Amino acid sequence: MEKFEVHILGCGSALPTTRHFATSQVVNIREKLFMIDCGEGAQMQLRKSKLKFTRLNHIFISHLHGDHCFGLMGLISTFGMLGRTATLYIHCHAELERLLTPQLDFFCKGMSYKVVFQTFDPGKAEIIYDDRSLTIETIPLRHRIPTCGFLFSEKQTPAHIRRDMIDFYEIPVYELNRIKNGADYTLPDGKIVPNNKLTIPSALPRRYAYCSDTIYLPRIIEQIYGVDLLFHEATFAQSEQARAKETFHTTASQAGEIARTAKVKQLLIGHFSARYEDESILLQEASDIFPNTLLARETLKISIESIKP
Amino acid sequence: MEKFEVHILGCGSALPTTRHFATSQVVNIREKLFMIDCGEGAQMQLRKSKLKFTRLNHIFISHLHGDHCFGLMGLISTFGMLGRTATLYIHCHAELERLLTPQLDFFCKGMSYKVVFQTFDPGKAEIIYDDRSLTIETIPLRHRIPTCGFLFSEKQTPAHIRRDMIDFYEIPVYELNRIKNGADYTLPDGKIVPNNKLTIPSALPRRYAYCSDTIYLPRIIEQIYGVDLLFHEATFAQSEQARAKETFHTTASQAGEIARTAKVKQLLIGHFSARYEDESILLQEASDIFPNTLLARETLKISIESIKP
Repeated sequence: MEKFEVHILGCGSALPTTRHFATSQVVNIREKLFMIDCGEGAQMQLRKSKLKFTRLNHIFISHLHGDHCFGLMGLISTFGMLGRTATLYIHCHAELERLLTPQLDFFCKGMSYKVVFQTFDPGKAEIIYDDRSLTIETIPLRHRIPTCGFLFSEKQTPAHIRRDMIDFYEIPVYELNRIKNGADYTLPDGKIVPNNKLTIPSALPRRYAYCSDTIYLPRIIEQIYGVDLLFHEATFAQSEQARAKETFHTTASQAGEIARTAKVKQLLIGHFSARYEDESILLQEASDIFPNTLLARETLKISIESIKP
Repeated sequence: MEKFEVHILGCGSALPTTRHFATSQVVNIREKLFMIDCGEGAQMQLRKSKLKFTRLNHIFISHLHGDHCFGLMGLISTFGMLGRTATLYIHCHAELERLLTPQLDFFCKGMSYKVVFQTFDPGKAEIIYDDRSLTIETIPLRHRIPTCGFLFSEKQTPAHIRRDMIDFYEIPVYELNRIKNGADYTLPDGKIVPNNKLTIPSALPRRYAYCSDTIYLPRIIEQIYGVDLLFHEATFAQSEQARAKETFHTTASQAGEIARTAKVKQLLIGHFSARYEDESILLQEASDIFPNTLLARETLKISIESIKP
């Protein structure tokens, strides 16, 4: 099975604690690494995770609060010292390019690789990354400043050819592409072999939605409907609901509510307020609404399994 | 005894490892905290050290390589979230003020306290901090970019009055200040009581010198002569002497050589290259030259004891 993993590098909120680093994650899709947010210490956590630095070419920044981007300079600078040559793409709001450029010019002068900013408008859902097997699109959120999440969607791969049936019907090679893409095959005698006798359907494409930071926002449900894994912030417990609203954050039960209504397969909660000594209350509250809930924690790795149709 | 402690928050060099954070220390002098350098993660390490954030009002930056200052934004921003009101002074090269100001304007808008930059020229030795009990002066070093160390010097405190002798000779209160400062006392009958019968000398002022990063630089010996504790970088072992010279760093034995010639009381080495799995080779090489050598490590605290004259 092709790899689709989420690695948690940090899952605390604005105030770092002795237990949590600021926000950062890495999504590993077929050994291509995509970093989401880059709080202070992300490079140390990346090293601990034993993920290969050279496999990381794209970083996505959800919004410009320090706990989501203060680790960028250290990471970029370390990559330079390690002699990286591949371009590093930073997908972010235009403002970050303006802010980081003078720092890059000063601290990273003469570096062995290029940093390229690809800016987007976090206010509208759009595809900001697209390759042969994957798209990444923004999920507009509502926080104190412009913010978005990211939706990682595998592309549907063509069906697998059944070699035994191809041989049996003596089907020529030039027909195989059409068959992979769903065509039936007509034998020389005019008889039709239906496609489902010639192929095995490929796995369903998998999807991961990352939503942080945001006020409780049911309008995202449509966009994330049915995803395999939803990361949703759950900064506060229900007792702090007023505080959550005031600071444009979500409570654990609200995150559970989003997961349940969106019929996602699994919920992962994070971005925990520093006030919680442990997060069992948050897990309890989210699980009461949506049982298949996990607590994020540093160095946690979650594999998203393929499902046969 | 008045407190004079050095806390190591990070003692790695440019490349962070799973064992070391980038450079940062806190000097605690009578519960006033002075931070020296502020590499990425310094705020997390400060929290682990259990030092009181509110006691920290001055940060000194030795030079503008990322591993010595990338933790500043996170620290400043966290202090703001904690509702700090006291001004925070950043003592640094002018360039850092220019680089950080746009970031502060953006990320720390409306913060509850002020950040004030006090810039200095790292090229000349000068006193950049002075209060009732302490001075801090720069130690010009030689690195790839302008760099200095810092020398913390307690001021000599006046001698302690011997209450029993004051009573015995019936010396009036208005004479006490003169006596504290060394004067003898003349009795009504003209007989002179020498000062050393009336006072107990106070402890010798203590000194801590922080030297990082630098090429082996014997000219600093005069300035740091006889300090109670010398922190000196020891990035490399002797086998990497050429590399040390090329990158303007020091080997462990060179650090030992500086300590021995400067007749310091104790040597603390740090800023270890990421290539060393453990630093025993560095400790060995420095100790061979200067036996009273300690390896820095995260969370290490060293107390500098008072010595009676």
